[in-house]
Amino acid sequence: MTPLTAGNTRVKEARKLHRRSVRSERRCFLADGPKAVEGALAVPGCVVEVFATPTAAAEHAELLGAMPLTLVDDRAMSGLSDSVNPAGLVAVCRFLRGELPPRPRLLSICADVRDPGNAGTVIRTSDAAGASAVVLAGDSVDPYNPKTVRATVGSLFHLPVVVERDPASAVRRAQEAGLTVLAADGGGEVDLFEADELLTRPTAWLFGNEAWGLPEELAALADHRVRIPILGAAESLNLATAAAVCLYASTRAMMAQ
Amino acid sequence: MTPLTAGNTRVKEARKLHRRSVRSERRCFLADGPKAVEGALAVPGCVVEVFATPTAAAEHAELLGAMPLTLVDDRAMSGLSDSVNPAGLVAVCRFLRGELPPRPRLLSICADVRDPGNAGTVIRTSDAAGASAVVLAGDSVDPYNPKTVRATVGSLFHLPVVVERDPASAVRRAQEAGLTVLAADGGGEVDLFEADELLTRPTAWLFGNEAWGLPEELAALADHRVRIPILGAAESLNLATAAAVCLYASTRAMMAQ
Repeated sequence: MTPLTAGNTRVKEARKLHRRSVRSERRCFLADGPKAVEGALAVPGCVVEVFATPTAAAEHAELLGAMPLTLVDDRAMSGLSDSVNPAGLVAVCRFLRGELPPRPRLLSICADVRDPGNAGTVIRTSDAAGASAVVLAGDSVDPYNPKTVRATVGSLFHLPVVVERDPASAVRRAQEAGLTVLAADGGGEVDLFEADELLTRPTAWLFGNEAWGLPEELAALADHRVRIPILGAAESLNLATAAAVCLYASTRAMMAQ
Repeated sequence: MTPLTAGNTRVKEARKLHRRSVRSERRCFLADGPKAVEGALAVPGCVVEVFATPTAAAEHAELLGAMPLTLVDDRAMSGLSDSVNPAGLVAVCRFLRGELPPRPRLLSICADVRDPGNAGTVIRTSDAAGASAVVLAGDSVDPYNPKTVRATVGSLFHLPVVVERDPASAVRRAQEAGLTVLAADGGGEVDLFEADELLTRPTAWLFGNEAWGLPEELAALADHRVRIPILGAAESLNLATAAAVCLYASTRAMMAQ
């Protein structure tokens, strides 16, 4: 088969999935690179079509198995990929089921997290720390944004990512599910290093926007507000690293039980 | 004073500091945005010149104090700033003294960390966690890369950042300074959650490249290799979040002593 070019209709249609409006309408998105495609292929019924350059198809033959491929040339691939150095493999995927699992032990709620890389990293870290799901609440970035998908390095396909317009509802729903909601808050009344008893409870961590943190009225809805001790002259941690420290503090406390 | 335009010689000369070769030759770099400029102003003798738009000069009058300013127009500012949305404030700074402090308790060594955002975030997190210094070793990114400077959010000015060509020498120097070197390594023999006794010792954490981790022979030079438990289906953490989990595990263990 001759690789399709950038002008081919199927390539052009797939490329439109870089736009959020098109993704929402078609309920499809792009998974870019071998890690993401591997994750997508592990979810039954998720992958609609895989585009690959001939080189990448040969290189990732084992991963792709019997999956039918659409071969494309390098120029068509750079249009499909969001990456500066495309790995040569992009899958069109159906939206995933984003539902809270029945009895979560650990959950991340992101309120108004705007940066795709940050949101993706929180999803990846939540997965690694053993969380049951991630809620992207309020004006948070689209989980199917190509940069978010890439930053999750496959974790988007491992755990449910729930989109919830209203952050306050997300907090309430977590509490109704029996979770203690801990707001990560630089001015919080609880010191993370002295919270082990609290951390052994089933927990939803609430993380705010990367620039302005959590609005006071939202933080007030949490059961406790927890601060990470800052020892040096830094004013704060970045969102994804703060989330990692909080989530792993929970994991550690829960495993020590 | 009429704001200088992009064509002005001083503006053009300062803009050249985006290039590493020019930075190395002049031993100067650019600090972009109010947080970075504030950090730079706190280091005696560091700031050579501050460029500001009239709007930013008015907005940050308190921060800038009696510092002489060079007013520039918006177009000149976007040439000086590396940011998509320039804050209107850029300082030309002298290289900082990057020397290991005499009796460090906690140190980060980055080996071949290439991404400026990652390196900057590790510097910021090391500062927050109370580390004494950061060593950028091997083929790591230039600490004065504008993206690195920005990601440190001022922390570049708070703690020494040492550049060391040879990662093995960096490990040896840390050991000679009395530090236990712990390599952050997904396949490490020590579980981070069971390392509290180890973590109370003066520690240098050794972090590897974001894509391929630590070369085996470098990890072997460390006193121990420590793994962060991965509970979900994620294969690993990203470098900056892994560093945050490791550094804060040290901080916590040291504070509990």
